[in-house]
Amino acid sequence: MSSWNRFKKYYYQNAALGLSLDISRIPFPDDFLASKEGAIQKAFADMGALEKGAISNPDEQRMVGHYWLRAPQLAPTKDLSNEISSTLNSIKDFAAKVHSGAIKAPGGAKFTHVLVIGIGGSALGPQFVNHALGQPGIDKMAVTFFDNTDPDGIDYVLGTLSGHLATTLAIVISKSGGTAETRNGQLEAAAAFKAAGLDYTKHYVAVTGAGSKLEQTAIKENWIARFPMWDWVGGRTSELCAVGLLPAALQGLDIQAMLDGAAAIDVVTRSTKTSENPAALLALMWYYATNGVGAKDMVVLPYKDRLLLFSRYLQQLVMESLGKELDLNGKVVNQGIAVYGNKGSTDQHAYVQQLREGVNNFFVTFIEVLKDRSGKSLEVEPGITAGDYLQGFYLGTRDALSEKDRSSVTITLPDVSARTIGILIGLYERVVGFYASLVGINAYHQPGVEAGKKAAGGVIALKLKLDAALKSAAGKPQTAEALATSVGGNPELTFKILEHLAANGSVKKTPAANVFDSTYSA
Amino acid sequence: MSSWNRFKKYYYQNAALGLSLDISRIPFPDDFLASKEGAIQKAFADMGALEKGAISNPDEQRMVGHYWLRAPQLAPTKDLSNEISSTLNSIKDFAAKVHSGAIKAPGGAKFTHVLVIGIGGSALGPQFVNHALGQPGIDKMAVTFFDNTDPDGIDYVLGTLSGHLATTLAIVISKSGGTAETRNGQLEAAAAFKAAGLDYTKHYVAVTGAGSKLEQTAIKENWIARFPMWDWVGGRTSELCAVGLLPAALQGLDIQAMLDGAAAIDVVTRSTKTSENPAALLALMWYYATNGVGAKDMVVLPYKDRLLLFSRYLQQLVMESLGKELDLNGKVVNQGIAVYGNKGSTDQHAYVQQLREGVNNFFVTFIEVLKDRSGKSLEVEPGITAGDYLQGFYLGTRDALSEKDRSSVTITLPDVSARTIGILIGLYERVVGFYASLVGINAYHQPGVEAGKKAAGGVIALKLKLDAALKSAAGKPQTAEALATSVGGNPELTFKILEHLAANGSVKKTPAANVFDSTYSA
Repeated sequence: MSSWNRFKKYYYQNAALGLSLDISRIPFPDDFLASKEGAIQKAFADMGALEKGAISNPDEQRMVGHYWLRAPQLAPTKDLSNEISSTLNSIKDFAAKVHSGAIKAPGGAKFTHVLVIGIGGSALGPQFVNHALGQPGIDKMAVTFFDNTDPDGIDYVLGTLSGHLATTLAIVISKSGGTAETRNGQLEAAAAFKAAGLDYTKHYVAVTGAGSKLEQTAIKENWIARFPMWDWVGGRTSELCAVGLLPAALQGLDIQAMLDGAAAIDVVTRSTKTSENPAALLALMWYYATNGVGAKDMVVLPYKDRLLLFSRYLQQLVMESLGKELDLNGKVVNQGIAVYGNKGSTDQHAYVQQLREGVNNFFVTFIEVLKDRSGKSLEVEPGITAGDYLQGFYLGTRDALSEKDRSSVTITLPDVSARTIGILIGLYERVVGFYASLVGINAYHQPGVEAGKKAAGGVIALKLKLDAALKSAAGKPQTAEALATSVGGNPELTFKILEHLAANGSVKKTPAANVFDSTYSA
Repeated sequence: MSSWNRFKKYYYQNAALGLSLDISRIPFPDDFLASKEGAIQKAFADMGALEKGAISNPDEQRMVGHYWLRAPQLAPTKDLSNEISSTLNSIKDFAAKVHSGAIKAPGGAKFTHVLVIGIGGSALGPQFVNHALGQPGIDKMAVTFFDNTDPDGIDYVLGTLSGHLATTLAIVISKSGGTAETRNGQLEAAAAFKAAGLDYTKHYVAVTGAGSKLEQTAIKENWIARFPMWDWVGGRTSELCAVGLLPAALQGLDIQAMLDGAAAIDVVTRSTKTSENPAALLALMWYYATNGVGAKDMVVLPYKDRLLLFSRYLQQLVMESLGKELDLNGKVVNQGIAVYGNKGSTDQHAYVQQLREGVNNFFVTFIEVLKDRSGKSLEVEPGITAGDYLQGFYLGTRDALSEKDRSSVTITLPDVSARTIGILIGLYERVVGFYASLVGINAYHQPGVEAGKKAAGGVIALKLKLDAALKSAAGKPQTAEALATSVGGNPELTFKILEHLAANGSVKKTPAANVFDSTYSA
């Protein structure tokens, strides 16, 4: 079959959504889709049960309800439907009041800036949407982020807010209310408000689960507002609940269009006819390309600057959902698909050299956006615009990779708008769900992140023990090994902690010729 | 051997540089380093010849001289030494004059903003350094970038410069002067200056190779200044020539400290004693971890917000250098190492789930920075700072990965400063050079990027043919297939081009039930 006939045969286009999908450059044989029909029908059935409110996250005994966020009428109970709708209304209402000045900064001026304090699912979606849909200088409010517990990183962001703190609204986002990075950011920001002579409680809003520590603090300190996070919405699928909608609404983005886009793709991807279901087709391509065991990386290359952060968003959605040790039967499978990429044509000048010539350990997802810009384009050559070049580089690179048997799929969107961002989010949420069914894993838990957090807690505890030991040694210099022995701590961790403390002036270090003979004292 | 003894045995620390390297968590056997001693000595010899001016890029018959940029006295001729030194002086002098107002904007005000127009090596280094060392609100000038040919992306950046164009200095960077994205950015920016009633030639500076088209334009239009790019500096190693130094100097960064840092690590990594050469140790770890064939990805996880863009910089440096089809003997090897990552602890909330539990197809490079911030830190709990948490998460994640046999190395730096950024850049440049020797490839060319550019040229040519065919058809609607036949073009590319033109209003599309029956007319 010619490549043009194969292209036509497998081309998916939904004119109403403006969405197209080209899977012809994944070299699956013609009987592949038929051979997986049983498996994908099982995925449709699993998804149907999930959407009806089944416990689809068995380890945590939770429903998985992010699809209800854009179609509240589908929630399994009337109460849930009402709660979703009323929360959405209260987000819109709150944003409108902030914009109008009905809710204002303590000094009487309108709020001008938003500081989002959150990490992971509480930052990646909001950051992606902020950049994808923002219009610098035109947005109703400027949005910035604390997305880590790096003191200098916090100072950097505070630097960008310099002079604007009095009119900055801070949104603290944590489902559990116990995320240490977020708690630290909340305290650091509060200190910055205080240092500027401001009462931070008049600047703070909480987005958190009912009964969480964060909610209790917000109530006790009488923060401006609180919005709920539900236990049936996972962090990596929380962009379309208050987590993502509140910052977006404050920025002045059309959150209803984003929800409508997601609802529209949901309707389409509920189809149990595989050839008419773009999420099913994509999931099957992931399966074919990675051999169903993550044998290849997913390189995400949107040819559009505004989609730069989509790969970071997808890293969480895909890798945290699919990167699992055990399948649903408890068998060790070490699943997952690694995701990376930034944007084209920029990345052509970084690593397309390797993609074309080097290790063939990836498949590319190109994202093409048809609309170049709002307004007319300059001709950079007679009859040619910068946007023609952008498309030319995408098509040229795609061909250059195909020539060398490097696989790719292409998603085509009409533009980058609130609606199409909702479509992209909804599309990938469902692809991940289908793929998880195909390989038989729970896509909705993250058991592997606890170990690192727990070990971090051990480091913090060891640090406190070392502080105490150094104090009680009253200035006597000791090696890391000696101190580790005296507090019963791991010597390597002890050494690393002491080096960190010495660099920050909390401990005095006396260097020795052999680094491990160096001594430390209070 | 206990992990503590292994840690001590292989720990590399250079107190003068402040640099440490922990390779103990790559599970190489104790005889590994000895077994590779011959190969690494060969790499030292190759590097020695390169530094003396040998033709180390045989395909392009070029010297490879980026190490001379920070030690001009080592350049193979007196003329070259002088040219490097005088260019550095002219960069410093130019920046000082811009800061003092001796060189000012046409309206008489000082320049306040810098717009860098460049892509690949002409953007990734400058962007990394700008973010790593910048101090928002304190920097002498604010630096922004056109790093693509996306019309909307260009408008986005122009939006951030709104109101400041009259005092914006634009630096157009292209070695060949023929990079289409950069040329397009140059023309788009010129149009924006014109639209604001400004003479762009009084705002433009060129950084380019002698005799390039860009240089000719800059001379003809009498731009403010020109700085050279040399054919012996590759794009991905150009941060420490005018490409990176000019924007950094204008921002107010200490470019001499950056050069001195690179010069200092160069001295250390010229050692032919493997155990005392951190670049050699790292190259050997890459070799062991990836089996010398790119079998694992390199996940780069700096626990420091300012190093967020380092992985993007490394994607080019590593993947464009190492991702090669042929070795130096012309044998097909499909080499390379895939690089991705953002920053910790942020990424723990994105994909450490997969790293710990999922596909074991990677090794991690942790980058630890000892200094938390300038100034004292708040206690977020008694005796504990946000920085203690940052270190705790790094150490905890490292242990959580080791427990599951996931490999890692750690680079420790005292701080993020101009000097340590120079050290990092110099370190990785040499690791890449050594690794290329270990696997027998040319690290200094990029033959694979031409194919995509050439194919893009074909798309542009086809677009012009379609324009002409549509015009001569005088409004008669035709299918993509018919138009492809009439211009002798590839039908798939024709279809894609027509869909793009239709979305931008340059072509009228009449949709049909079957997408390929849709027709297009002028």
